[in-house]
Amino acid sequence: MGTAMIILFGVFIRYDHESDAHWVEHRKHLNLTDIENDFYFRYPSFQDVHVMIFVGFGFLMTFLKRYSFGGVGFNFLIAAFGLQWALLMQGWFHSLDYTDGKIKIGIENLINADFCVAGCLIAYGALLGKVSPVQLMVLTLFGITLFAVEEFIILSVIHARDAGGSMVIHTFGAYYGLSISWMLYRPNLHQSSRLQGSVYHSDVFAMIGTLFLWMFWPSFNSAICDHGDGQHRAAINTYLCLASTVLTAVAISSLFQKHGKLDMVHIQNSTLAGGVAAGTAAEFMLMPYGSLIVGFCCGVISTLGYIFLTPFMEKHLKIQDTCGIHNLHAMPGVIGGIVGAVTAASASVEVYGHEGLVNTFDFEGKFKDMVPTTQGGHQAAGLCVALCFGIGGGIIVGAILRLPIWGDPADDNCFDDETYWESVAISAHRNF
Amino acid sequence: MGTAMIILFGVFIRYDHESDAHWVEHRKHLNLTDIENDFYFRYPSFQDVHVMIFVGFGFLMTFLKRYSFGGVGFNFLIAAFGLQWALLMQGWFHSLDYTDGKIKIGIENLINADFCVAGCLIAYGALLGKVSPVQLMVLTLFGITLFAVEEFIILSVIHARDAGGSMVIHTFGAYYGLSISWMLYRPNLHQSSRLQGSVYHSDVFAMIGTLFLWMFWPSFNSAICDHGDGQHRAAINTYLCLASTVLTAVAISSLFQKHGKLDMVHIQNSTLAGGVAAGTAAEFMLMPYGSLIVGFCCGVISTLGYIFLTPFMEKHLKIQDTCGIHNLHAMPGVIGGIVGAVTAASASVEVYGHEGLVNTFDFEGKFKDMVPTTQGGHQAAGLCVALCFGIGGGIIVGAILRLPIWGDPADDNCFDDETYWESVAISAHRNF
Amino acid sequence: MGTAMIILFGVFIRYDHESDAHWVEHRKHLNLTDIENDFYFRYPSFQDVHVMIFVGFGFLMTFLKRYSFGGVGFNFLIAAFGLQWALLMQGWFHSLDYTDGKIKIGIENLINADFCVAGCLIAYGALLGKVSPVQLMVLTLFGITLFAVEEFIILSVIHARDAGGSMVIHTFGAYYGLSISWMLYRPNLHQSSRLQGSVYHSDVFAMIGTLFLWMFWPSFNSAICDHGDGQHRAAINTYLCLASTVLTAVAISSLFQKHGKLDMVHIQNSTLAGGVAAGTAAEFMLMPYGSLIVGFCCGVISTLGYIFLTPFMEKHLKIQDTCGIHNLHAMPGVIGGIVGAVTAASASVEVYGHEGLVNTFDFEGKFKDMVPTTQGGHQAAGLCVALCFGIGGGIIVGAILRLPIWGDPADDNCFDDETYWESVAISAHRNF
Repeated sequence: MGTAMIILFGVFIRYDHESDAHWVEHRKHLNLTDIENDFYFRYPSFQDVHVMIFVGFGFLMTFLKRYSFGGVGFNFLIAAFGLQWALLMQGWFHSLDYTDGKIKIGIENLINADFCVAGCLIAYGALLGKVSPVQLMVLTLFGITLFAVEEFIILSVIHARDAGGSMVIHTFGAYYGLSISWMLYRPNLHQSSRLQGSVYHSDVFAMIGTLFLWMFWPSFNSAICDHGDGQHRAAINTYLCLASTVLTAVAISSLFQKHGKLDMVHIQNSTLAGGVAAGTAAEFMLMPYGSLIVGFCCGVISTLGYIFLTPFMEKHLKIQDTCGIHNLHAMPGVIGGIVGAVTAASASVEVYGHEGLVNTFDFEGKFKDMVPTTQGGHQAAGLCVALCFGIGGGIIVGAILRLPIWGDPADDNCFDDETYWESVAISAHRNF
Repeated sequence: MGTAMIILFGVFIRYDHESDAHWVEHRKHLNLTDIENDFYFRYPSFQDVHVMIFVGFGFLMTFLKRYSFGGVGFNFLIAAFGLQWALLMQGWFHSLDYTDGKIKIGIENLINADFCVAGCLIAYGALLGKVSPVQLMVLTLFGITLFAVEEFIILSVIHARDAGGSMVIHTFGAYYGLSISWMLYRPNLHQSSRLQGSVYHSDVFAMIGTLFLWMFWPSFNSAICDHGDGQHRAAINTYLCLASTVLTAVAISSLFQKHGKLDMVHIQNSTLAGGVAAGTAAEFMLMPYGSLIVGFCCGVISTLGYIFLTPFMEKHLKIQDTCGIHNLHAMPGVIGGIVGAVTAASASVEVYGHEGLVNTFDFEGKFKDMVPTTQGGHQAAGLCVALCFGIGGGIIVGAILRLPIWGDPADDNCFDDETYWESVAISAHRNF
Repeated sequence: MGTAMIILFGVFIRYDHESDAHWVEHRKHLNLTDIENDFYFRYPSFQDVHVMIFVGFGFLMTFLKRYSFGGVGFNFLIAAFGLQWALLMQGWFHSLDYTDGKIKIGIENLINADFCVAGCLIAYGALLGKVSPVQLMVLTLFGITLFAVEEFIILSVIHARDAGGSMVIHTFGAYYGLSISWMLYRPNLHQSSRLQGSVYHSDVFAMIGTLFLWMFWPSFNSAICDHGDGQHRAAINTYLCLASTVLTAVAISSLFQKHGKLDMVHIQNSTLAGGVAAGTAAEFMLMPYGSLIVGFCCGVISTLGYIFLTPFMEKHLKIQDTCGIHNLHAMPGVIGGIVGAVTAASASVEVYGHEGLVNTFDFEGKFKDMVPTTQGGHQAAGLCVALCFGIGGGIIVGAILRLPIWGDPADDNCFDDETYWESVAISAHRNF
């Protein structure tokens, strides 16, 4: 696989003009400062997103008492493989230089590859502990490919805006994972139920993931916005949305537990739902109080989802969702898509100014005659595309993963690192 | 509470000109590049400070053997609530647009909100394990409000300089927390003494907090400095001060322990005292060796504080200080204020240059006739204000928190996550 | 020691022109924006490198079941001491202002000090658990000094290029540590063998270190590159090299274990080898596929090193290498040096453009007549110097450390935090 990747990169991938030594030749023609700046403009956001992908997702998935290696380790593997594949797949759609048929990559491609990988890591959340590393590679291979096509259709063909990927990343990724989980339903999973919980310190490890996701989410939603006001706004909206979600997640968690106690699962997960829902509308004029409202609703819905919906889905819909991605990514993602459509449809020249409107919704080129109401419709269409790709793709890939050739764990070996990790430390840990 | 916040934000909070889509209209009048740059100039510092607030403070407080959930979880809750309240409170003083009566927020407000929250999190350190989440919300509500008033008086009325908040944040926050702790004195706290220590891995978790605080402290002290030399200097001074503190904290810890062994409590906490003390004078011409001297002294004082003062205060002054914030924030904060006053008073045109002096101490507008010696006096006055607000505010809020309506834990339920967290993992952990 | 440092800093160290308040005086002569920008251009990279040094190296070394305090704590101590000493040592070579005999420090010096410290922390990896804190201070004192001299010879005298320090940092640091370990060979180390492994959660802690090193390595290799294309390229090359290494490390780990299971040691360490090897050639036109090839090879070699070479070295060469730095730093460092020499020697005007060539290899001043082939020779010479300094310096310092005055632990007290840390938590942990 590594060899295949080297050959593909050898044939297709080159540096873009900002990374190529040749650009110095043209410095009289280019604006030197802009190119130098661009590194620093994009790079810190890139690193924040990078931390979310590897430490955020990775540690959030360490919560199981004996699947922490698998949580952080396979997350690492998926991400490292997915990044390379995403550079190729997204590159063909977005960065192909038609003069020489090569894909020209730069820092922005690295951010987009991280976004692409995020979709597969979300899907992994539904399957955590129940699939083999080989299955995960297959899931990633197809997931990245589907993502690249779906992203191209939503952003370029339909011209929906989705800065933080509520639709493109979260809705797609979550339904992709849930559909696969449905296809791989294990009726006897209760045989591993003794391992399907956390221990004290694994919950603290998971909080590392939660906090790095929570803190850097404003960078995630603003990373590929236009420089200037859109990026400011995306960061502020996401920040407020997340802050609001924490309060309602805590309140709902406490309300529905015995003796008003808090549940660590809700603190680890539901507090993040606001970031998902703020994705699409982050760069719009959602207004600070609008962000708080979105966060408020997501905190409520996501926490209630963990309390009522996840058990219901497992029992009646045959969907086993280890991390509860339906509550953290699927529902908030759909909410985010709807909020985006409504906010876009109700945009007006009074609120945005004429140039601000054109700028925010990119009413340029062949879309220069669009108006906010049509944009709202396009946003809704984008959401549908994400849902279709997620569910349809998940069913197909799930069918492939059901083939008995991938070495998936037996029902009583799920959620157990011993299946895939060689370590005396694991045996020593048995007494937990 | 969430609803109240939405209404308040709806009435008062709007985007500032850099985050509003309208600004594009005015791009001919504004310097476009400056606005684009400003995001990137402030944003990485903002994220560093953000990491300190959530991961730094949060994980530093996970050290107790069975209160790690409460440490990192309630820290998260306080911070998420405090940020929203701080945007309102600080906004009224600093970002009110008198033309329309709205508070206009941008990235700099987010940094200041993080600073404001830091004061309350410091106070939480003294009370860790002994108060209920509801008490923490009350503490935060009043703490943020007091902070905003105190900050306005010190920085704007008295015209003291305090880039890293030795006085405004650390002195205020620490005495606020210590006074509340004094008001909430529990004579029978020894009933929980079996839980008032660490286990091996909880100490390692706490080191995550220590290191993120230590590393990003230069960003904290330089985040709201003027661009240019002041910001460079603040980062360098803080960095040197912290490096020096580590060496003396280790030396003193080893000197005063049996067999020259090191105490993890000192490594986790005293190594940070230099960052606190460098806060006020960070942007002054403290000189590299001056920073080392300040760090040297703080390392000594803070470590000795943990060895001698904390037990003394608990026994004789009825102040139970769980995290030892008196040694980490209160004493170094006061030292920082004094160092700031002395450095300011001894500033001269030879060292700063004429413009450098005006620039560093902001001798402009109605303060254009000030000289360094008067500035030194104003710095000292600022320190007194911080102390008064901290102690006075803490006593009043402490009195409120003594009301028997807040659901605080019984003496034998302190330092125990089982009181407020629902989790089988906690019971499983009992055998620690 | 703290006092000596204060005196040395007092005599030698001053702010550079960007950090000194005087610069405002000269703002008409200087480009104001450049100076303001410079902070933001270098500072985020500085913080990423800083995180690697303290959290990355620190947590990577927490993997031992009962030496996590020593891993992260002594790493902290070495780094804090080393940074100060490095500012002095490197300053004499690079930042001495001949007009007044003072060393002028700024943000770039802080990055270089972090690099310098990295060399000593790598060396610590070979000695983890077997030396006293005092020995570590001695190791650091000499290590920093040797580093500064070696770096000056390689970069300034020989004019080799080494942006990410494959030779200067990794090769030197690793052979320095391995030689010391050879000098301090303990034939009876098996008496501590019960502690020379990990427990479940200590392995998860180590993954924090791995991930922060992995994610921020592109910042490490690009931190001191020229602004512009070189920095873009260094980040992209390192990123691709690391992604490729993960895949081969996982594949080789699985191939050589019983039942195709993965070994956590390889995931923690070998996945990073690509970053080491990409160090020298990172800013060259290595091409994306070239980066993948380098990463591929390093993943194979490093993982095989852990499986076969480390046991062989311990048994037959009397080199006890706790963390396996030979596989993570020494071999990949040498590979990086060779890749750098070959890439430099084969550079051409077609690939780089004329100005790009001059710019990338700094063919300016007294080196303006150099051509790529000679540059390749100089790169090879640089690698030899790094090896000589590492091995020679290590043997000398190892001889000093063998003196029976440093309080090193007995053979049956190695890898045990109880030797140097006072904590009830440690005793409680004994039952692991």
